[in-house]
Amino acid sequence: MNVSKRVEKLHPYVPGEQPKDRVYIKLNANENPYPPSKNVAKNVIKFIKNNPEKMGLYPDPDSVKLNEAIAKMLNQSGGVLCNAKVDGKNVFPSDEDKIPFTVTPDMIYSGNGSDEVLSFIFYAFFDSSKKFVMPEFTYSFYPVYAGYYDIPMDLVPLNEDWSLNMEEMVNRAKENKSGIIFANPNAPTAIGIKREQVRKMLESANKDEIFIVDEAYVDFGGESCIPLIKDFDNLIIVRTFSKSLCGAGQRLGYIVANPELIKTVFTVKNCVNHFPIDAISQVSGISACEDVAYYVKTSKLVVQEREKFYDFLIRKGFFVTKSQTNFLFVKHPQISGDVLYKKVKEEGILIRHFATKGIDDFVRITIGTKEQMSKLKNIFEKILAEC
Amino acid sequence: MNVSKRVEKLHPYVPGEQPKDRVYIKLNANENPYPPSKNVAKNVIKFIKNNPEKMGLYPDPDSVKLNEAIAKMLNQSGGVLCNAKVDGKNVFPSDEDKIPFTVTPDMIYSGNGSDEVLSFIFYAFFDSSKKFVMPEFTYSFYPVYAGYYDIPMDLVPLNEDWSLNMEEMVNRAKENKSGIIFANPNAPTAIGIKREQVRKMLESANKDEIFIVDEAYVDFGGESCIPLIKDFDNLIIVRTFSKSLCGAGQRLGYIVANPELIKTVFTVKNCVNHFPIDAISQVSGISACEDVAYYVKTSKLVVQEREKFYDFLIRKGFFVTKSQTNFLFVKHPQISGDVLYKKVKEEGILIRHFATKGIDDFVRITIGTKEQMSKLKNIFEKILAEC
Repeated sequence: MNVSKRVEKLHPYVPGEQPKDRVYIKLNANENPYPPSKNVAKNVIKFIKNNPEKMGLYPDPDSVKLNEAIAKMLNQSGGVLCNAKVDGKNVFPSDEDKIPFTVTPDMIYSGNGSDEVLSFIFYAFFDSSKKFVMPEFTYSFYPVYAGYYDIPMDLVPLNEDWSLNMEEMVNRAKENKSGIIFANPNAPTAIGIKREQVRKMLESANKDEIFIVDEAYVDFGGESCIPLIKDFDNLIIVRTFSKSLCGAGQRLGYIVANPELIKTVFTVKNCVNHFPIDAISQVSGISACEDVAYYVKTSKLVVQEREKFYDFLIRKGFFVTKSQTNFLFVKHPQISGDVLYKKVKEEGILIRHFATKGIDDFVRITIGTKEQMSKLKNIFEKILAEC
Repeated sequence: MNVSKRVEKLHPYVPGEQPKDRVYIKLNANENPYPPSKNVAKNVIKFIKNNPEKMGLYPDPDSVKLNEAIAKMLNQSGGVLCNAKVDGKNVFPSDEDKIPFTVTPDMIYSGNGSDEVLSFIFYAFFDSSKKFVMPEFTYSFYPVYAGYYDIPMDLVPLNEDWSLNMEEMVNRAKENKSGIIFANPNAPTAIGIKREQVRKMLESANKDEIFIVDEAYVDFGGESCIPLIKDFDNLIIVRTFSKSLCGAGQRLGYIVANPELIKTVFTVKNCVNHFPIDAISQVSGISACEDVAYYVKTSKLVVQEREKFYDFLIRKGFFVTKSQTNFLFVKHPQISGDVLYKKVKEEGILIRHFATKGIDDFVRITIGTKEQMSKLKNIFEKILAEC
């Protein structure tokens, strides 16, 4: 059977394993260990009971109410959850996280997970005529999209301390007359850069080429670049419900950008799948946004466990980057990443090992609940005692 | 802002309108007027109550249990619901609909609506090197995908009676050394062709080029080509939960094909969105498949109302094609399609008018409940009386 010329060259994304042979504690996919807010279950059940016929009708193709709810949540929280304060259901963003304008629904596009949204952005803003710029190590789905849409890449090595080489990324983008994408905080390194550093990059970069900041993990301690949107028309911020909003199973992601860019992404969506978010997921997404106070609390819990586990690892002689995410990027001076991953798996916990040259010494550990991290701590101690 | 060269040329799909100014009876999007089986609501609520944490974890990327449920449903029903008999929960396919082999889960790929699945198929099996063949009038999303992926088309005019010109389609595909896609029954014409006619096409067409039959509407009176899959490795059957399975809001679609083709579509999916079906939609899809007896009943009800409305329209002097779908393709000798659509809309019912040369005399009317069709009948009588 003949397949298209494109499909012969594909290199699919490989996510964290999901074995079915036994029940593992999953600290390998950067999922949130806490369930969604009870408001989600309550409203979804209400929706199904009161409106069963709506499951039979096409959902709102533009997810208008969901986009309104996302905008409202961002205005309420300021954009970085773990820094906000809560009092009951009231949320107070920290001074540095306050967004200096009102995010309006026409600045939001939401889709079937940030993966789908990212795919549309790649289609919309990059093409085969020039090499777009990204870090050598970042979210490993970006090179997959590039291959899918036949877009050449220009990979910029990270600095020795695993941080982004901002200057080189901007220089290469100027040379290539092209756009830039990176995750901030970055993955799997867990390290973020400051908003004012991104502002400097934007000031120096091409104003008419897209500049994408993927803030999947920002709520665990990064600095959001949403406040820069009014100053830079070429900036797109990518967000997801899968991490700090405890909703990986709901498949929801969104972008924040100026309304013109949002319109372009809607055009792309309408050429692929007119109704990407099902009726129930729209309800569940809205319900999550309505209880942002809950996610402030769970984000703080994750940060708390992360810091405790970071301290433990440092005490035990590991190299660990200072994380602003819900995971740790970890290397032991003697035990290889592959061996560490396998020994932990034998004990019933999955962590992530990338068999990628340059980062294959490392494992990536998702932060779980207090109980899960305590188990992992015991396993690490056992492994270290055996060495 | 620079966009990609591709995005400048896009022509997005335009679905049936979804106005928010007043509440209309929607007979314009070929939705099913009946809600999903009660088994769907029951199981989704149970899932949410018992496993709230699963909404926070990534769903099964391969939808294994859903694909098993779909295969089981096809084996049980034979593939065309309105022809099956039911006795309680037991379903008996008609002799002609029986599938002469067991459909196995590795012959199924399911995704976020048949629209998303179709998009992946276009990417996987067509490219810019040759013109693929489709009817001049068929599901209007096909040309949109072709534009999106820069695939040239070869449009074959329908016969004078609005049926597919099968011979010409095969001849063109042989000339172009390319694949074929069409809907069977076709849209918006509502006319199907027989399985043995499709077999003849397949026998004559290129064996190593893809041959896609979109059976979105087959359950309302068509003949399924699933029985041909074992004989033709290049055949893909496309199906949806949005029509006969009363699930447009759930966003589920699937294909049936030989396992090698299924693997190729999985590869494409894994380059775009690794987890296209959210956790709840997987549960709702499985639950729908488990109560196929319900959908046999609702499909029969739709067919019954369609035949009554067909008779009414013929009596009133309309031209109507003989439908095997959940809609009617309708033209009045004096009243233009546009005027008919507008007059019906004024009375609170939406039907579909295509402003496309060649079919702009027609309206497409989705079959609703008995009550909805009775209202529409009264409106038509009023309009005719005024002419």
